[in-house]
Amino acid sequence: MTDLNNVDVLLVEDDPNDVELILRALGRHNLADKVFVAIDGEEALDFVFARGKYSSRSKNIMPKVIFLDIKLPKVNGLEVLKALKSDPVAKLIPVVAVSSSREENDVVRSYELGVNSYIVKPVDFKEFIDSLDEAGFYWLLLNQPPNKK
Amino acid sequence: MTDLNNVDVLLVEDDPNDVELILRALGRHNLADKVFVAIDGEEALDFVFARGKYSSRSKNIMPKVIFLDIKLPKVNGLEVLKALKSDPVAKLIPVVAVSSSREENDVVRSYELGVNSYIVKPVDFKEFIDSLDEAGFYWLLLNQPPNKK
Repeated sequence: MTDLNNVDVLLVEDDPNDVELILRALGRHNLADKVFVAIDGEEALDFVFARGKYSSRSKNIMPKVIFLDIKLPKVNGLEVLKALKSDPVAKLIPVVAVSSSREENDVVRSYELGVNSYIVKPVDFKEFIDSLDEAGFYWLLLNQPPNKK
Repeated sequence: MTDLNNVDVLLVEDDPNDVELILRALGRHNLADKVFVAIDGEEALDFVFARGKYSSRSKNIMPKVIFLDIKLPKVNGLEVLKALKSDPVAKLIPVVAVSSSREENDVVRSYELGVNSYIVKPVDFKEFIDSLDEAGFYWLLLNQPPNKK
């Protein structure tokens, strides 16, 4: 069972096929064992803000990165992003939008709301894995997160 | 001569040795030919805001990424970051702090000011090149910038 206070990646994704591909991509650099998957925007916010069924989580221990799908049920990705970037502590967590949308509206709006990076999901299966492998490597091994834990 | 309206990377770095290493790293993926180097914070801001000797530049054409050293002469990196992230248009440009400082103050302050990513310059020569190669690949080939040009 995932230790809620030892999560490196919060993956917010409702599509189980994409979850599987992303976990496989992260596994290439052995980065798949500290991933927590939230399947909608509400659950993602509950996790970060240690609310509801995540109230036992320590709010001060933050993941190193959040991979956030933009098209989500309940609370959509842009709303999640807005809520995260409006909070003085949560705003420090790097958020990478991972989206099948290349629409300029979604891209520009994400940057306006303070997204740290925006990745378009490649349609090709192999390219998808390669891209998420690169992104995992970059954000978990190269980027210096705000909290050292 | 660099076309001021066709710059993919704005590199803000005062140390000529680091400039050389970063250009070499970007060259690995053939990403070194659209780089503009600003050697202090004032020049970086003049470039972005098309002021002074850069007034002929079109302010609406933005680089895909800014690699920003935090320790800079004249206007320091954190001040540059603050100025960029306070402007409604410039704030959309991804800014990656590339710094020899691992001090938590610099890291956290950078995230508070809205930096998109923070990379600590490795001391080892080969690691330095590898890291900047990875970063160049990530921000120029994988990340979707806000403007498509």
